[in-house]
Amino acid sequence: MPTIAIIAPGNMGAAVARRLTHAGARVVTSLAGRSQASRDRARDAGMEDVGEEALAAADTILSILPPGDAEALARRLAPILARADTRPLYADCNAVSPETVGRIGGIVASAGCPFVDVGIIGGPPKDNSSGPAFYASGEAARRLEALRDLGIDIRVLPKPVGAASALKMSYSGITKGLTALGAAMMLAAHEAGVAEDLTSELDESQPVLADWLKRQVPRMYGKAYRWDGEMEEIASFAGRERGSGIIYTGAARLYREIAEDLRGEREQIAALDEVISRIA
Amino acid sequence: MPTIAIIAPGNMGAAVARRLTHAGARVVTSLAGRSQASRDRARDAGMEDVGEEALAAADTILSILPPGDAEALARRLAPILARADTRPLYADCNAVSPETVGRIGGIVASAGCPFVDVGIIGGPPKDNSSGPAFYASGEAARRLEALRDLGIDIRVLPKPVGAASALKMSYSGITKGLTALGAAMMLAAHEAGVAEDLTSELDESQPVLADWLKRQVPRMYGKAYRWDGEMEEIASFAGRERGSGIIYTGAARLYREIAEDLRGEREQIAALDEVISRIA
Repeated sequence: MPTIAIIAPGNMGAAVARRLTHAGARVVTSLAGRSQASRDRARDAGMEDVGEEALAAADTILSILPPGDAEALARRLAPILARADTRPLYADCNAVSPETVGRIGGIVASAGCPFVDVGIIGGPPKDNSSGPAFYASGEAARRLEALRDLGIDIRVLPKPVGAASALKMSYSGITKGLTALGAAMMLAAHEAGVAEDLTSELDESQPVLADWLKRQVPRMYGKAYRWDGEMEEIASFAGRERGSGIIYTGAARLYREIAEDLRGEREQIAALDEVISRIA
Repeated sequence: MPTIAIIAPGNMGAAVARRLTHAGARVVTSLAGRSQASRDRARDAGMEDVGEEALAAADTILSILPPGDAEALARRLAPILARADTRPLYADCNAVSPETVGRIGGIVASAGCPFVDVGIIGGPPKDNSSGPAFYASGEAARRLEALRDLGIDIRVLPKPVGAASALKMSYSGITKGLTALGAAMMLAAHEAGVAEDLTSELDESQPVLADWLKRQVPRMYGKAYRWDGEMEEIASFAGRERGSGIIYTGAARLYREIAEDLRGEREQIAALDEVISRIA
């Protein structure tokens, strides 16, 4: 059975680890400086804390982090990987732009390790489903197929590093972008005193979108702090100087505002909950 | 039968006129300085060209224009209305922010005319449907109910001037906003060489959104020049300094880029058509 290193044991990382350990794999991580919540998630998922130096002994390293932390991890691990006896496969599974993943791939290559660009589409693995999909691109992508036997839905794109990230960006740009639009317009309608009129018109003429937003907007609150960075990566992917890029710069700021509200007054959260409760 | 003035005979204005003349109403307009296409639409809809001065003799004036032209029309008609013997009901039916419609209402009030804020939701009237919905707010809103007998779906919101426009803004912000997101990410995926991967993932995990975008994105091309101004109004409605407002500032620019491409190289249009053709 292979040894897989997963950094870090966040919601996605720990759920992936849990699926791998259930399939019999050994999953290692480093808990140095991590919160008690991360330690608890790691323990529940059957992960072993081996420290950063020992991560290099794994067969595969999966980097699963908030997008803003992805490059820093590669920079921190590079010297460790460079002086190790083994050369693990390094898969960056983060929601970053093709440009960012290109830089990360360069750092990993300079440490002598094979590199795979991975875009995860779908929520964290659950016991009753086969998802999420791990799209993989780059010359070493096929090597990740070994994880299929451990219950991970690996989908190789026969394309260079950057393709898997581009797919992730464009997919998230639509889904998490729509969540941002819904939240933005629900808040504006609420402030203007027309929330009930908006939800009744949406129910009547856009029932499919109303239903989608009713499910997705509340799930976003606790992730907004993380989606901020993802929207910034999408802005860069789409071209910051273009209309597309400006849309996602705005979405990043919206998610920052909601994340701040969640930690503070919770006024926007309360308004969103009220509007959503009116959707049929 | 009442006389209704409609400015201008664009796609929406002419289609509304056609429904009214079919119901037996007299519909007047001013064709001074209008294109041949507008003249043809006006004639086909049974509209009479009476010139701007005579518009003041109508029972009701419906302003149906690209959003950037709405305030200028009110300013141009105000002196005509002020010196006329009659005081028609003036309904601003444009996709403008509550702030803009407040200014327009002030201009109309200074000319001594009753004012209604109207937000039209849905496409131009067709023979086989009852829509679109004309949401009306402001103290004089109930006076517009007279148009119900002529086949117009008037829905009075018992709220002040600005409410109907706020409803229109927040609804369009979701629907035309999603069209912008879809176009933005299809173009970015196409440039990155992952368009086919995006459409196949959307078909698999977001079939409802894939289907919605397949229908709506191509219908947008010819309207992008007009949606630009509508997105600017939504940016102002949502607050230009906030994340929400920045999103719509970006959407306005995207629609400008697409409108320019449609008049010019049509490269983006071709890319969008290619991506959309892959959606199941």
